Amino acid sequence: MFPAPTTPWLLHPQLAAETFAVGDLTLSRVLLMNDTNYPWLVLVPRQAGAVEIIDLDDTEQAQLMREIALTAGVLKDVTVCDKLNIAAIGNVVAQLHVHIVVRRRGDAAWPRPVWGTVPARAYEAAERERFIAAIRAEIAFG
Amino acid sequence: MFPAPTTPWLLHPQLAAETFAVGDLTLSRVLLMNDTNYPWLVLVPRQAGAVEIIDLDDTEQAQLMREIALTAGVLKDVTVCDKLNIAAIGNVVAQLHVHIVVRRRGDAAWPRPVWGTVPARAYEAAERERFIAAIRAEIAFG
Repeated sequence: MFPAPTTPWLLHPQLAAETFAVGDLTLSRVLLMNDTNYPWLVLVPRQAGAVEIIDLDDTEQAQLMREIALTAGVLKDVTVCDKLNIAAIGNVVAQLHVHIVVRRRGDAAWPRPVWGTVPARAYEAAERERFIAAIRAEIAFG
Repeated sequence: MFPAPTTPWLLHPQLAAETFAVGDLTLSRVLLMNDTNYPWLVLVPRQAGAVEIIDLDDTEQAQLMREIALTAGVLKDVTVCDKLNIAAIGNVVAQLHVHIVVRRRGDAAWPRPVWGTVPARAYEAAERERFIAAIRAEIAFG
């Protein structure tokens, strides 16, 4: 008689604790990782229960790729970038999220991956706001 | 008067040395990483000079996502899989390649990422051929 209640999407508290919100794209929330070692965004598809990319349907997967390419391109434009690292890992926080990390030769973890190697260095407020503003100047968030 | 000679795509020798060929999809060569610690495929788009996902055009990016989803789904079907790790890193080998790694709680690196943590353990030939056959039974390679 009644449709099953749908579970609303909520950002995982650990992701919320480690990041600042930048804006919402069609599918994903864009977050800035609170780590000045690397310019580092995280895309979180707002799809309750999604853990793997293959938990998204074909249309959402295609949209995720467009949002990965969009944010990767903007990061490359507004930073000094030798390499992009793009990854959906989720061994610790299962909620589907995609890391988009700008790497520079000689950065804190280079050439190792950024996960679990070097402690995060928090942003100061002004530096963070400048970086978020630079991203928002390039992306039309909803 | 003459078109510029096009550079043919060639698999990077380090990727060739660490893997076995499984088959070619529309865009990507599928490789099996020679490491029994984890069921681990690598997709290499056969696009000469590509280093970043954003070096591919929109159509190729969409195709790459379809091939990621296809291979990830097959890996999940033919293995015991607690989590998929999907990543384009390339800090050491620049040629664009995407890792599709099956993770199990308690595997050699769990919950850390697989890159640079635990030395690879090579396959024995029979075990390798069984695994490649299981993947080929699920994917129609060109």
